[in-house]
Amino acid sequence: MNHQETLTTYLASFIQELSNSGVRDVVISPGSRSTPLALLIAEHPTLKYHINIDERSAAFFALGIAKQTRKPVALLCTSGTAAANYFPAIVEAKLSRIPLIVLTADRPHELRDIGAPQAIDQIHLYGKHVKWFVEMALPEIGEEMTYYARTTATRAISTSLQQPAGPVHLNFPIREPLLPRLDPSPFEELENRPAITVKQGDTLLESGEMKKISERLQRIEKGVIVCGVIDYPQFSTAVLALADALGYPIIADPLSQLRSGSFSEEYIIDSYDAILKEIVSDEMLYPDVIIRFGGMPVSKPLTKFMKRLAGTEQYMIEAGNSWRDPINAATQMIYCDETLFCEGLLKQLDEKRHSNWLEMWQNLNRIARNTIINEISDITELDEGKLVLELVKRLPQNSHLFVGNSMPIRDVDTFFHFNQQNIRVLANRGANGIDGVVSSALGASLYGEPLFLLIGDLSFFHDLNGLLAAKMHQLNITIIVINNNGGGIFSFLPQSNEPKHFEALFGTPTDIDFEYAVKMYSGRYSKVRNWDEFHHSMNEAITLKGLNVIEVPTNRNANVDIHRKMWKRVSAEIEQYVHGEKE
Amino acid sequence: MNHQETLTTYLASFIQELSNSGVRDVVISPGSRSTPLALLIAEHPTLKYHINIDERSAAFFALGIAKQTRKPVALLCTSGTAAANYFPAIVEAKLSRIPLIVLTADRPHELRDIGAPQAIDQIHLYGKHVKWFVEMALPEIGEEMTYYARTTATRAISTSLQQPAGPVHLNFPIREPLLPRLDPSPFEELENRPAITVKQGDTLLESGEMKKISERLQRIEKGVIVCGVIDYPQFSTAVLALADALGYPIIADPLSQLRSGSFSEEYIIDSYDAILKEIVSDEMLYPDVIIRFGGMPVSKPLTKFMKRLAGTEQYMIEAGNSWRDPINAATQMIYCDETLFCEGLLKQLDEKRHSNWLEMWQNLNRIARNTIINEISDITELDEGKLVLELVKRLPQNSHLFVGNSMPIRDVDTFFHFNQQNIRVLANRGANGIDGVVSSALGASLYGEPLFLLIGDLSFFHDLNGLLAAKMHQLNITIIVINNNGGGIFSFLPQSNEPKHFEALFGTPTDIDFEYAVKMYSGRYSKVRNWDEFHHSMNEAITLKGLNVIEVPTNRNANVDIHRKMWKRVSAEIEQYVHGEKE
Repeated sequence: MNHQETLTTYLASFIQELSNSGVRDVVISPGSRSTPLALLIAEHPTLKYHINIDERSAAFFALGIAKQTRKPVALLCTSGTAAANYFPAIVEAKLSRIPLIVLTADRPHELRDIGAPQAIDQIHLYGKHVKWFVEMALPEIGEEMTYYARTTATRAISTSLQQPAGPVHLNFPIREPLLPRLDPSPFEELENRPAITVKQGDTLLESGEMKKISERLQRIEKGVIVCGVIDYPQFSTAVLALADALGYPIIADPLSQLRSGSFSEEYIIDSYDAILKEIVSDEMLYPDVIIRFGGMPVSKPLTKFMKRLAGTEQYMIEAGNSWRDPINAATQMIYCDETLFCEGLLKQLDEKRHSNWLEMWQNLNRIARNTIINEISDITELDEGKLVLELVKRLPQNSHLFVGNSMPIRDVDTFFHFNQQNIRVLANRGANGIDGVVSSALGASLYGEPLFLLIGDLSFFHDLNGLLAAKMHQLNITIIVINNNGGGIFSFLPQSNEPKHFEALFGTPTDIDFEYAVKMYSGRYSKVRNWDEFHHSMNEAITLKGLNVIEVPTNRNANVDIHRKMWKRVSAEIEQYVHGEKE
Repeated sequence: MNHQETLTTYLASFIQELSNSGVRDVVISPGSRSTPLALLIAEHPTLKYHINIDERSAAFFALGIAKQTRKPVALLCTSGTAAANYFPAIVEAKLSRIPLIVLTADRPHELRDIGAPQAIDQIHLYGKHVKWFVEMALPEIGEEMTYYARTTATRAISTSLQQPAGPVHLNFPIREPLLPRLDPSPFEELENRPAITVKQGDTLLESGEMKKISERLQRIEKGVIVCGVIDYPQFSTAVLALADALGYPIIADPLSQLRSGSFSEEYIIDSYDAILKEIVSDEMLYPDVIIRFGGMPVSKPLTKFMKRLAGTEQYMIEAGNSWRDPINAATQMIYCDETLFCEGLLKQLDEKRHSNWLEMWQNLNRIARNTIINEISDITELDEGKLVLELVKRLPQNSHLFVGNSMPIRDVDTFFHFNQQNIRVLANRGANGIDGVVSSALGASLYGEPLFLLIGDLSFFHDLNGLLAAKMHQLNITIIVINNNGGGIFSFLPQSNEPKHFEALFGTPTDIDFEYAVKMYSGRYSKVRNWDEFHHSMNEAITLKGLNVIEVPTNRNANVDIHRKMWKRVSAEIEQYVHGEKE
């Protein structure tokens, strides 16, 4: 068989199987060596491809789609530094457990390490930051090689999905000429069922072990459930039922998806960050057991609280074989699917429990939340915390809120209070980078409208290139840029006590007028000067299509002062309540 | 000793030694974990630091400084994806042999792989793309540890400089609290001489071997010297003397630094790309020996020509232990410092040789060059090839031309003809990526003014973030953006024969109005509509300070037609000359 037919059959078999095994979206960056894969993907009857020119943004865009859809997304780029640009998003995907199928084109073996253009060493390019690496065979024909191409696609997908999910990397050596045969379509004759299907079992704790745990929990009145970063709809239902059966409050991180939904707020504690921040005598809050799910919560006061309780029983439930206990406080690592763990316990727990313990947490939460709202309502100037409160109030039902790292996610933690609007909150909390956030949000918006992105100015700047996707693919997104002209988080850290070099090294004001960037990408831009204008822009945003950017200028120093004043006030209220309880 | 003193002494010793051993510039991206290193670098009496917020741009910026100054440049960022953003520039630095000292801050061991925020696996983060990786010891005090910190700095620098030069990576685990002692300055008491100095020998071929080669060359009249990517001033002098002694023409890639300088053009062949492009009967050009220096030249016709001559003696001279012969044509790999090789031969060659062979090359070169100039002079519309010609004419003496990859470097190859303006031509020709070019050029401009960057629209887009450095550091640069609205190179490739999907996958027009971007970074922008406007903008550019962008809109299809027409014409003229010579 000639070169073109071999190239076409082998690669088309692979691509067909990506589709057969569950991939729908492919993010492609233009390049030459990847030509046959790109053309075949474009030609495929059901795969959807999305062009993204900057590979760094492309990979974060794919991450966003995968995060939102909870499905594996493929990525394709050419050889050379193009592939190296994927690295930040791959690192993030590995830690945040997002399934990505990374396809890189490469020079064939005889053109490697001999100074050929755009040839870099792509073998294990991403090191330990992918779950699986395959140096693909050169295109070859025959039953065995077709089976190899097909099953490698299927294995790539199933590997990316296995707990903990993550990225895989397949490197394709391809010889010239690079054009595949497109007419007649090579997909017409290919099967639309995978050569082999993969069924994935879940990690399940043996029932005797489950019984022991349920018996233990039934004897403990003062328990707390901590839900960090975890995003499975079935889990939300199961953990709420578990809380109900045990009478335990759920300390719910904004990324637990338990701060918003069509369920009762009875068990949801959302203001723990404020409660635990400056509390002096917190003994009455000490539980006798903590059941922990998901990645570490955002709140530092919470993690410190759990660390203080290192002597107390703490169960860390993990579906995947990883270890997420940076506070060294877990007493039991329980490797078990989180949903099945909750459901398994529920089967063993007979009677519903009512306790003062739960009521105390509910009271504290009410006090903290109301104090925050009261304190904030008096603020007339534009403020980062109040912004979250005002934003969340105005989010439409079933909308998506993508949150930038550094300060925005912390403010969301403090100011996004429970509501029944069914808002899905997303963020890149694997490595917590400020990079790639615009692209991730745009990727998420593809199948997740309406979507609002709350982001700081440095993070927005870092991925301005990501905005091109909004323009090229007519995506609908509202981006709220908190512009405090630099790195706001450093004002909260000890670095701010060293005024020498502070602005130069940490404040780093850029003085960028973002209106230019938004206009460049054909977006709508408004810079609000007060709350009325913010409300007006938000009202507009709900009806607008396309890229819409609302810039909210704030002041780094004022922001620190307002936060600190508010926490002091909450602390005083909490202390008063605690004092009253004690007497 | 307390934590702060230990942190300060250990890290200050390291930083002092960076300076003692030859580092002057450090590019810093803001972050928290890197705080002690950043503050100490800022506090250092002689180190110069440059803030660059986007780590991808930061690394390319450092690469540009190092390329221009031929000195190692250090880079500093915090832990997490920040470090992953360095990857593209590191890959480029490895292949283009640029010494970078990459410093990344990291969580200490007890906070790794347990879900701590911003903690990723940074051990061997860049795999084989750095020359040396060191997981640094935690800050510790004592004579031995101070010696370790100091010598590791010195070794990092000398390793980065050893042939082939390249990047090294030092990963610093650092415990909180992160603030070092700055008052009194920790550098006052430190020595300003390195603990150990490193003397680096050069690779030198044994004199008996050199004698054999010189004797062989003296018997060959028809020889050609090919200088690819190579950039040492001493080498230029030596190779020109060698050409003079042997009577061989030098086929000089634009990145050989032999196309411009205060020397005679007698031996310089600059229009070989056009000569060899469509030539039918090229036997009369066949040499009996080729002496090759440096990385593969840009010209595809040249590499094909050398490949056709695979039976002929071809010496590849390499100072470093690498292998750069993607055409499988070298018959001898000679590991020897390139300058010493030329000088060694010169000592053995007695009489200067004159030959018809050299004259023929000179004649062909004159015909090709004149035909190109004539053909181009008739073009009235804006054209990419003519742009290079017009640009080079207007470059001031001793200026720097940074050239983008893909089409610009190819057009410079064809249209940058020999001149005595002493223009240094720079490009990222390790992996030939279109990424990071803006930042590399800006880095080069820091100590290399005046600097002009010639770049395509996709490459300009890819590193728009790089422009922030121009604004923040008041750099002076003139950027000429060739805007053909997409990937112009693909129109020259077989992909263009497949019209289906072509614009979507390869043409990829972005329809960006770059004026917005330039304004955002406080630059001066002009879009020229004709040659008069271009000349006017260039005249202005020479006197302007700051960021100055000249956009030249061109048409991808017209560009292909004009290039092809010109090559046909050159080919016809060459054939006519060849025919005349034969008769």
